[in-house]
Amino acid sequence: MAPVTNVRVLFAAYPKDFPIPGETTVHDTSETIDLDSAPLNGGFLIKTLVLSVDPYMRGRMRRPEVKSYAAGFTIGAPLAGYGVALVLRSDNPDVAAGKYVYGIIPHQEYSIVPTMEGLLFLEKHPKLPWTVFVGAAGMPGKTAYMGWKEYSHAKKGETAFVTTGAGPVGSLVIQLAKRDGLKVIASAGSDEKVQFLKDIGADVAFNYKTTDTREVLEKEGPIDVYWDNIGGEILEAALDHANIYARFLECGMIAGYNTGQKGITNLNQVISKSLTISGVLVFRLHAKYDKEFYDTVPAALAAGEFKYNEDVSRGLETVGDVILRVQKGWNTGKAVVVVAEE
Amino acid sequence: MAPVTNVRVLFAAYPKDFPIPGETTVHDTSETIDLDSAPLNGGFLIKTLVLSVDPYMRGRMRRPEVKSYAAGFTIGAPLAGYGVALVLRSDNPDVAAGKYVYGIIPHQEYSIVPTMEGLLFLEKHPKLPWTVFVGAAGMPGKTAYMGWKEYSHAKKGETAFVTTGAGPVGSLVIQLAKRDGLKVIASAGSDEKVQFLKDIGADVAFNYKTTDTREVLEKEGPIDVYWDNIGGEILEAALDHANIYARFLECGMIAGYNTGQKGITNLNQVISKSLTISGVLVFRLHAKYDKEFYDTVPAALAAGEFKYNEDVSRGLETVGDVILRVQKGWNTGKAVVVVAEE
Repeated sequence: MAPVTNVRVLFAAYPKDFPIPGETTVHDTSETIDLDSAPLNGGFLIKTLVLSVDPYMRGRMRRPEVKSYAAGFTIGAPLAGYGVALVLRSDNPDVAAGKYVYGIIPHQEYSIVPTMEGLLFLEKHPKLPWTVFVGAAGMPGKTAYMGWKEYSHAKKGETAFVTTGAGPVGSLVIQLAKRDGLKVIASAGSDEKVQFLKDIGADVAFNYKTTDTREVLEKEGPIDVYWDNIGGEILEAALDHANIYARFLECGMIAGYNTGQKGITNLNQVISKSLTISGVLVFRLHAKYDKEFYDTVPAALAAGEFKYNEDVSRGLETVGDVILRVQKGWNTGKAVVVVAEE
Repeated sequence: MAPVTNVRVLFAAYPKDFPIPGETTVHDTSETIDLDSAPLNGGFLIKTLVLSVDPYMRGRMRRPEVKSYAAGFTIGAPLAGYGVALVLRSDNPDVAAGKYVYGIIPHQEYSIVPTMEGLLFLEKHPKLPWTVFVGAAGMPGKTAYMGWKEYSHAKKGETAFVTTGAGPVGSLVIQLAKRDGLKVIASAGSDEKVQFLKDIGADVAFNYKTTDTREVLEKEGPIDVYWDNIGGEILEAALDHANIYARFLECGMIAGYNTGQKGITNLNQVISKSLTISGVLVFRLHAKYDKEFYDTVPAALAAGEFKYNEDVSRGLETVGDVILRVQKGWNTGKAVVVVAEE
């Protein structure tokens, strides 16, 4: 068969603040691949089906001298992120053609992958589309599930405050908290999202852009568990309205990803209220919870016991836009890009 | 017997930044008390023997509208703090004259106390003076011991960083960490104090005023346990040089007590390194550890297994000076005021 174009999304420039489609990232059609004969060198060829666009990706758009948990993207190379792909051909006897893999994969239509390192096999679910497996049943869902299990120490009757509640992490946290018998205060950035918060069971839901978070917490708090995807002033408000012995789960600080972190000036509350602050980083919890997660969460999603919300775009050419929308909070559910049907 | 003067130290004005002797606090001789006939109303009369001056007291010198774990001092009323006192007379059958009590007591020579609430009885130790029972065997020692036991999750071979290591909390933390088999990096604010750090076993001891903390941590870290009595820039340095899964024990933030807290801008390290930050507030740990503490620590101090350092002043008239010296870090050991011999 003749070579086909292998569409890619390349990282083109370090963003000054927000990542700009066409400048920070570019859509590239210069490469081709022969799907039948491209050498695999012991690895396997995959076809990308869906890709996840997540807030943390902004952190990888940094200069190599800045250290963090995930390597920075390389200028001129494709972006990479969580996705689901179909194995087309394989040199590896453990990886058969026709299998589905999940994990960090390049933002391109086809990739030759050397090993299964960082990937895992998924079974096709009779009721759930692949998009769910990068969202509520993927990294964001795992973040919520594993973080909540490991660090919340939630007790019935307590009060939780969940930020970015309409996102794929926050929305599952809300539902886990409700299942554990907590009162849930949740915030999001639009009235449409606030409606979704109510639909999934939040007791108190508000638009943080039009309602003062401190006023809500003053009235509905104090809070025993704080799920933080925001950082900055909202974290300060949560510290001021925390109950004694509250647990803070630090999952993200998007308030500062693009414009710099605001200094937190009231950490003394940690002492006076005997607070515990824990960082939630999902890949360090996989070993402990992955089996339990896949045994329970997809089934609960398929049965409608946990609700989820997706914001699906089609085609790699949308990736740059979707990245910006996620950083701006303009997406209305888990941002997923469908790259190809099977 | 004729009434005697009851010397007091009154809280006179809210400090703008550092507390000024004679202005923030005043030495007062206007009150008298008849030790034989002053009515006890079911309570008991105590004679103050020693008083502790601690960094946290700055937090009580605030306007009543600012909330914190300890009530603010009242303008015109005596200061109060940890101390040891002798019961002179009692209306309470459970509190016999001749007993010794420990707890928060007013900064005055004699006090009539309504109940034992917040106080406990101490037995006179054959080898340790009462000053030790407000220091290494009192609140600061308990803070170190109970905080370390509850939150450090220390493992042999790990590295700890202890700030204000020459103080009564830090110096015991250093010795507990060494006993648990950790490498200990410790800082203090003078070369004399640095010598003390070495004397009590710190592996790496430095004067943070003349040596850059970041350079030391870069070379000797990363750190697995951080005992923070400072906050501010030193906390930021510790976050940047923390190991994955490090535990931060927040005990004090004296860098900001007098001049305002600096905003902490790198809390994102909590996420990327899966850190846990815990607030250490000793009175919430009493129920769990008080018996164990009194069963073991005074004996270890008396036997020389734990070393301690005191900075003893004599007379209530020195309290205002001692408070300022503690806030400035000019004391050279646990600051204690001996008010009276028995």
